[in-house]
Amino acid sequence: MPLTDPDRLFPAEPALRDLARGLYQGIRDLPILSPHGHCDPRWFAGNARFPDPAALFVTPDHYVVRMLVSRGIPHADLGVPRRDGGPVERDPRAIWRRFAGHVHLFRGTPSALWLEHALEHVFGIDTPLSAATADAVYDAVEAALATDAFRPRALFDRFGIEVLATTDAALDDLSAHGTIRDSGWAGRVIPTYRPDAVVDPEHEGFDANLDRLGEVTGEDTGTWAGYLAAHRARRSYFKEMGATATDHGHPTARTADLPRADAKALFAKVRAGRADAAEAELFRAQMLTEMARMSLEDGLVMQLHAGSHRNHSARVFALHGRDAGFDIPTRTDWVGGLKPLLDAVGMDPRMTLILFTLDETTYGRELAPLAGAYPALRLGPPWWFFDSAEGIRRYRETVTETCGFYNTTGFNDDTRAFCSIPARHDVSRRADCAYLAGLVGTGRLRLAEAEGLAHDLTVTLVRDAYRL
Amino acid sequence: MPLTDPDRLFPAEPALRDLARGLYQGIRDLPILSPHGHCDPRWFAGNARFPDPAALFVTPDHYVVRMLVSRGIPHADLGVPRRDGGPVERDPRAIWRRFAGHVHLFRGTPSALWLEHALEHVFGIDTPLSAATADAVYDAVEAALATDAFRPRALFDRFGIEVLATTDAALDDLSAHGTIRDSGWAGRVIPTYRPDAVVDPEHEGFDANLDRLGEVTGEDTGTWAGYLAAHRARRSYFKEMGATATDHGHPTARTADLPRADAKALFAKVRAGRADAAEAELFRAQMLTEMARMSLEDGLVMQLHAGSHRNHSARVFALHGRDAGFDIPTRTDWVGGLKPLLDAVGMDPRMTLILFTLDETTYGRELAPLAGAYPALRLGPPWWFFDSAEGIRRYRETVTETCGFYNTTGFNDDTRAFCSIPARHDVSRRADCAYLAGLVGTGRLRLAEAEGLAHDLTVTLVRDAYRL
Amino acid sequence: MPLTDPDRLFPAEPALRDLARGLYQGIRDLPILSPHGHCDPRWFAGNARFPDPAALFVTPDHYVVRMLVSRGIPHADLGVPRRDGGPVERDPRAIWRRFAGHVHLFRGTPSALWLEHALEHVFGIDTPLSAATADAVYDAVEAALATDAFRPRALFDRFGIEVLATTDAALDDLSAHGTIRDSGWAGRVIPTYRPDAVVDPEHEGFDANLDRLGEVTGEDTGTWAGYLAAHRARRSYFKEMGATATDHGHPTARTADLPRADAKALFAKVRAGRADAAEAELFRAQMLTEMARMSLEDGLVMQLHAGSHRNHSARVFALHGRDAGFDIPTRTDWVGGLKPLLDAVGMDPRMTLILFTLDETTYGRELAPLAGAYPALRLGPPWWFFDSAEGIRRYRETVTETCGFYNTTGFNDDTRAFCSIPARHDVSRRADCAYLAGLVGTGRLRLAEAEGLAHDLTVTLVRDAYRL
Repeated sequence: MPLTDPDRLFPAEPALRDLARGLYQGIRDLPILSPHGHCDPRWFAGNARFPDPAALFVTPDHYVVRMLVSRGIPHADLGVPRRDGGPVERDPRAIWRRFAGHVHLFRGTPSALWLEHALEHVFGIDTPLSAATADAVYDAVEAALATDAFRPRALFDRFGIEVLATTDAALDDLSAHGTIRDSGWAGRVIPTYRPDAVVDPEHEGFDANLDRLGEVTGEDTGTWAGYLAAHRARRSYFKEMGATATDHGHPTARTADLPRADAKALFAKVRAGRADAAEAELFRAQMLTEMARMSLEDGLVMQLHAGSHRNHSARVFALHGRDAGFDIPTRTDWVGGLKPLLDAVGMDPRMTLILFTLDETTYGRELAPLAGAYPALRLGPPWWFFDSAEGIRRYRETVTETCGFYNTTGFNDDTRAFCSIPARHDVSRRADCAYLAGLVGTGRLRLAEAEGLAHDLTVTLVRDAYRL
Repeated sequence: MPLTDPDRLFPAEPALRDLARGLYQGIRDLPILSPHGHCDPRWFAGNARFPDPAALFVTPDHYVVRMLVSRGIPHADLGVPRRDGGPVERDPRAIWRRFAGHVHLFRGTPSALWLEHALEHVFGIDTPLSAATADAVYDAVEAALATDAFRPRALFDRFGIEVLATTDAALDDLSAHGTIRDSGWAGRVIPTYRPDAVVDPEHEGFDANLDRLGEVTGEDTGTWAGYLAAHRARRSYFKEMGATATDHGHPTARTADLPRADAKALFAKVRAGRADAAEAELFRAQMLTEMARMSLEDGLVMQLHAGSHRNHSARVFALHGRDAGFDIPTRTDWVGGLKPLLDAVGMDPRMTLILFTLDETTYGRELAPLAGAYPALRLGPPWWFFDSAEGIRRYRETVTETCGFYNTTGFNDDTRAFCSIPARHDVSRRADCAYLAGLVGTGRLRLAEAEGLAHDLTVTLVRDAYRL
Repeated sequence: MPLTDPDRLFPAEPALRDLARGLYQGIRDLPILSPHGHCDPRWFAGNARFPDPAALFVTPDHYVVRMLVSRGIPHADLGVPRRDGGPVERDPRAIWRRFAGHVHLFRGTPSALWLEHALEHVFGIDTPLSAATADAVYDAVEAALATDAFRPRALFDRFGIEVLATTDAALDDLSAHGTIRDSGWAGRVIPTYRPDAVVDPEHEGFDANLDRLGEVTGEDTGTWAGYLAAHRARRSYFKEMGATATDHGHPTARTADLPRADAKALFAKVRAGRADAAEAELFRAQMLTEMARMSLEDGLVMQLHAGSHRNHSARVFALHGRDAGFDIPTRTDWVGGLKPLLDAVGMDPRMTLILFTLDETTYGRELAPLAGAYPALRLGPPWWFFDSAEGIRRYRETVTETCGFYNTTGFNDDTRAFCSIPARHDVSRRADCAYLAGLVGTGRLRLAEAEGLAHDLTVTLVRDAYRL
């Protein structure tokens, strides 16, 4: 018996299910476009085998780690490194057993779907994971990983990935991307310009980062003009290396468009380390508008991920640092926040700014009305916590009537869990087909329109929005 | 093949669909009560033919204009006038072709449903609109519009409209309403008192408007007492001309109930043009309570539409002025905002204040709890962006369990797109029947109760709430 | 014909309905665990008969009173006492007739379901309540209440209640609980420590309450140390009398963790009656963290009910005081609010803090992400206004994918309407089974997992979370 139901995520009502299944058949085998994610380009540069099942499925997956932590398993027992280099579990099999012994925690979550999809469809396993089967499943995964067919490039090809964008710090030399490009392998792995560490005055090491930015670009990052020129230089380099987009992770959606003299003075204060919290926020706000203007110049698509309270637990941050599963969503005010940027570039149809929220209340109230008016705006797909069947359903139900489908941008897997990429795109395709089937079945859409939309949501809108 | 599915918007599950269809049969042909909208009373006063298809379906419809603008079609290309009188498209057929060439943008939106309903049921057209059929559909609509059967009064009668309320500025002389009344035509078109331009200190021309208000009423609008008396006089005139309600469009739901001396001093400052933004907001807040007290005196039902950030794009406002599709919803705090007004009149069962929100999160958290407690409050139907199948479903699902059906007020079409009025009411009736069918089918309501409710939601509650 | 549909609240789609029905069969007869509610322990201490149908179904039920008030029936006409001792309706039959005459107001609300369940399943009545049947139903209920089978202890046993927690002021002597314990009756009725009146400086009589707290405990509540010691003493006494939990009703979720000297100074100001609103809020915030630390010491589970604007109507509060149906939900910021408390105790797996919100927007955005990360946190079930079929559905749909089922805590009836307890638990069980059936029917959960979950949600998670 297969681990996954062939009709999973389709409507239960038979007529709608038939419609959804039919729509899905038409798009199931389309290539995967992954324009935003967190895979490590060195996997594909070096093409070394993945180290072990725990390193593939448990330790790097925030969804998995946080759930286990929430029921009392310490980060260290899952192999998450400590900042002080202190001892953490190093035995992958022990980590895997802990995971398997608590797999019931994931019932009803997308992690369960992704895991079973990957075990079955990537590794050919048909045993549900549990404490009892932990070792057998571990051994089967490990055996597969030891083969060439499970090296990164082979999986990339087998997954049918047409393009995979990584997310790369502004100071990254993109040498892994260079290696891939020069390797002769046909896989398209492209970088994305993510300048948070040289844009956010509250980022650890901001000042040193700006020094380094100056060295790398030969610009004087002690001045506002030099600092902007350095960004332009890095963006240009990223573009040369294949980038089509930038990405910005900000605590809020606030933007600003200060007079040049004020921006210059603010930069001076920030650069001198004398900015308070309000000035740091204002600087980030200003930089979003600067980045938007540079996008008009160089054509890089801009992505904004706002509304995450990063590293919420002081204790976890002290022990394990960033990205330990303790980023928590917060309210986001898009309507007030984006106005300065939109007054600057919002009506320009050459601009593409893709918005990602963790505050679902903004879908219907703010984001769909904004995207359904400003030519520069597109809605990104549901992100972190919401890239799930229910999350996608609520997204479509709350945005479609206001901004339609054509102001949206397809799906992002946004993951560093490589083997879950096919599963995540499959969930998205099924959830979209379920939604379209509902529209057809209730007389809101003709079947031919739904067929066209299923295709557009899967590939056309992604290529168009991300200029792929 | 008809453009519209006869079972559209009913549940897909066959037993629920049968229930919904049965409920709908019982109310489909009830008269249309339109207690809040934006039709031009001069249409019915003069009864001239509608100018052309674009002027009927495209240019004045914010839903249509904003979506086309969002994908890069400038306002001017759709015939939206410029404030500076600069050139805009004047050829209705060119505008229509642009619309037809982008009709896919509306897939899954209520605009698509409304359009197809109007084309099929008002104009007898069975061809889907597309770039290919643009001219044929244009010609068919134009040919119909040239006939007497498509003049405003004939359509009004054919649509089965029992009463249509317009929205009229406080300074409007209501001459069109007078003409209608004196014409011998039986159609009931009534005004609504909308005093925003003489209540909001931030409205362009506020001071001149108050001068004019003084002239029109013979009251001294230089004093607080005279200003209030002038409102009383205008309300009385509107009531004489058939009005049963007032309507207030405010940025927030804030109300105030200042001591008389403070209100007087605030008015003096406002009238002198010396009020800052906070004082302007306080003045609007105070005026809501004053209007509520006047409603207690004269029996006019009060409507409050709050939470829209008007004219969000500075560029669009500069080029095209108000009402160009760039009003964006914002958060609204009803619980704190309304408290002063409710402390003044909220427990008085003679008062009716109907609330409209653009922030759906307030349905379950704020509005249904408030309306389910205060005798003075009723919930208005889902408004702008939410007057759709999903919007109505979410509204019923989030408010009914807390405040029941009998604190709600039926449907508002809220439109200036005259030919979409039957379509909009049809969507509302179908969506309500779908919801009721769900309650019956899951044992939460008896069929006879649902039949009574379908009728009450369509006519009884509207007549009762709006005192029609 | 029965009043209630045997398949009520199950999905309408036949295959899902069968699944839901099957799951429900497996848990229908499990005992009722009621770890949070407002029944009066004196009912079970004295075991006197309930006075009359109105006193059982109308006057003390906020859901019922507020809806009747909202359509213009004054509190006094429903027998709600006045603070000034002024006249209110004293004839229970007259109150009952008013209720019966307006029972249509409750169509589609959980009150209607609860009422019909109680009339049919507790009282054996098969006549729908209406103006016409008011007297007959009244007589039937009254006749039953006069029998021993309808005394509180008999109903408790018949309802299959395994444990019932009451909510008791910190100053309560728990004498009724003592009487129950000494009575030889096997029913488990346990207290809950609710210290709001000695924690909230804005509570009427706060200062006198602290004096009394000092007398009762022999501690010096004039000092910060003595005040905390007094809490420890009362908590210890409550625990001795059977309590397993504390409960805290705060206007917001704000917490604080001040340096000891600051806390001491703040207490001095509060105790002297010189604290302003901001300081009162800060004191409540600090006390939540103090209570959490005491929970670590004594093992009492902590519950936090935040986000209610109590006594919203000044007029109703002046006439009838607290708890008159005019508590209105407000926005709650859990992410910022809880951070100080979570930094203090959030990663400690010995701690259990159960969170209850009236702001549903926080489910997906804040509460599920927090509970899905911090070991100390659990999500309480949907509360007041949301303990309904739709409320439970939205709760499961918005939290499950992020924090799973095992960070939730089963159901609370949270009621003082004793005869509605079986109905409320039945709604919860049915709604949960409907949700689980949906997951099974769409391939997101195996049937055996759903069966286990139905059991866990009904009893295991409650016993575990509340340490019963």
